[in-house]
Amino acid sequence: MSSTTPAKTGDLTPPDWRAIVEAHARIAPRIHRTPVLTSKSLDAMVGAQVFFKCENLQKTGSFKIRGAANAIFSLNEQEIAHGIVTQSSGNHGAAVACAAAWRGIPAWIVMPRNAPAVKRLAIEGYGGRITVCEATMTARIEATRRIQSETGALLIHPYDDDRVIAGQATASKELLEEVGDLDAVFAPVSGGGLLSGTCLGAKSISPHLRVFGCEPAQADDAYRSIETGTLQSLDSSDTIADGLRAPLSPRTFAILRKHVAGILRVTEQEIIATTRLIWERMKIVVEPSSAVAIAPLLKTGGVAALALPARADGGNLKLGVIFSGGNVDLSSLPF
Amino acid sequence: MSSTTPAKTGDLTPPDWRAIVEAHARIAPRIHRTPVLTSKSLDAMVGAQVFFKCENLQKTGSFKIRGAANAIFSLNEQEIAHGIVTQSSGNHGAAVACAAAWRGIPAWIVMPRNAPAVKRLAIEGYGGRITVCEATMTARIEATRRIQSETGALLIHPYDDDRVIAGQATASKELLEEVGDLDAVFAPVSGGGLLSGTCLGAKSISPHLRVFGCEPAQADDAYRSIETGTLQSLDSSDTIADGLRAPLSPRTFAILRKHVAGILRVTEQEIIATTRLIWERMKIVVEPSSAVAIAPLLKTGGVAALALPARADGGNLKLGVIFSGGNVDLSSLPF
Repeated sequence: MSSTTPAKTGDLTPPDWRAIVEAHARIAPRIHRTPVLTSKSLDAMVGAQVFFKCENLQKTGSFKIRGAANAIFSLNEQEIAHGIVTQSSGNHGAAVACAAAWRGIPAWIVMPRNAPAVKRLAIEGYGGRITVCEATMTARIEATRRIQSETGALLIHPYDDDRVIAGQATASKELLEEVGDLDAVFAPVSGGGLLSGTCLGAKSISPHLRVFGCEPAQADDAYRSIETGTLQSLDSSDTIADGLRAPLSPRTFAILRKHVAGILRVTEQEIIATTRLIWERMKIVVEPSSAVAIAPLLKTGGVAALALPARADGGNLKLGVIFSGGNVDLSSLPF
Repeated sequence: MSSTTPAKTGDLTPPDWRAIVEAHARIAPRIHRTPVLTSKSLDAMVGAQVFFKCENLQKTGSFKIRGAANAIFSLNEQEIAHGIVTQSSGNHGAAVACAAAWRGIPAWIVMPRNAPAVKRLAIEGYGGRITVCEATMTARIEATRRIQSETGALLIHPYDDDRVIAGQATASKELLEEVGDLDAVFAPVSGGGLLSGTCLGAKSISPHLRVFGCEPAQADDAYRSIETGTLQSLDSSDTIADGLRAPLSPRTFAILRKHVAGILRVTEQEIIATTRLIWERMKIVVEPSSAVAIAPLLKTGGVAALALPARADGGNLKLGVIFSGGNVDLSSLPF
């Protein structure tokens, strides 16, 4: 295990290996060490050995509790005296509400009107105080600022926050601790918290491993940003993968630009078909955003197109896939 | 760990601890060691700590591969020379087809006309040769006998077989190895292969632990058999729990009568609501037959009604639940 040397990227210094190890020590007693599952039938379809890190089985139903808990438990008493506020399409909101409840402080959650009902209910279940706003980034930011000024609550951004990124990195740290010799890891990308954490966590342990982001073609700002080398805006985000509707931030873009091997895009049809396939074959409930991370590998020639180097042991490629969450509304399944 | 002394019950000597250990050594390299999951929200609903042994995440989607693989791999070359035949409502059929394919021999599967399509497809996927018959026990037995006489294939009964029972016992062996100090274990009961294996496996490790069977009220022959002390017939089996439509055999009844603490019955509505609850809260796909094993504990006063002794450590009761399978047809969900 090598230590990641903090690297200046513009003004932003990403979390180093020590920050990730500290985050893990801080949150491990509170969260699940989620299982890594395998499936011979999916292996056959992909043409590689695939190891699925099941954050859908994580507390609150997604990886988001890792970052939220790390942020909230690394704050001092004074910083959290007036509670926490955040904006979230759902999973980060639930995670903040849950971690705030663990710490015994109030949490205000700003969420867009079109977020799934099941996610709103989950947040209320954790005692979170919900403020609904229009489904635009501007409306979210405005509502968040208003709550900040009215209550003095501290903002925990869903991904533009080093403590959050260090927390998300612990998922790939656990995956690599369990399956050490992976050739590549795949994670969905939205704002980039999970994917940049995955780059930092996985590559700290296996520097030569490649990390790919997976993204809906209908919300492909990360793809365009990496391709052009300039942070692109997210003009529309009309995708069934409701956890993947946020744009990269300068902070996450800087990490991805340095570390990511590529961004792979999938269609809405591919997302839906893959979601159903995982439910049927793996017997786990994943949300469409999770399916995005394996969907590119299920296309004909999907793995070959990545041109990964052959393994020294001559065996099949070993790939890690991070299933980000499992919060779906069973009343309105897309299949 | 104490060894179970083989006890004569009528003519039937159940598998002893050595047979279970041998079964485990035989099948462990071929099957998943399935995860034991926990859920704080379900713990709160039940009023105890619950440890879920997730055989829905097992190869072929159910625990049945344990018994089938143990039976098929304990046979000699001569015994399997003409292949295997079995009758099954689905999961045992898939398991036999899969284990036979591993061993490189043909498998004929007799299944009732009303078995879910997804189970038929799974069996065909493993290379099993399906014979459809009417949904009566008589029709199944007849079709099975015909194939036996035509092909010389060896019958592997779904549960009336000590090698199968010893294989099913390995699920509770793994559960107890992971969570040693359980107060009780709950498993669904149909023909009684899993439940009698659970009795033998769990009580060999923890002799004072209590094992409960859980059964649809609409197919409650095990309940009536235990209550009356006489093996009862299954007059109707009109339940959504399609894995629980078989009657006990003299062999499994003898084991249950000696070891089981009680049989708990649940309504169809309770089965459906519990299935959905598990999908939503635990993010795993379980079939209704699995939900039957936790449904009795979700009734008001469910755990209290069992009158389990308080724990010596003064803590909450620790309960094991075996989720038997996850093979459902996503095209026709009951919710």
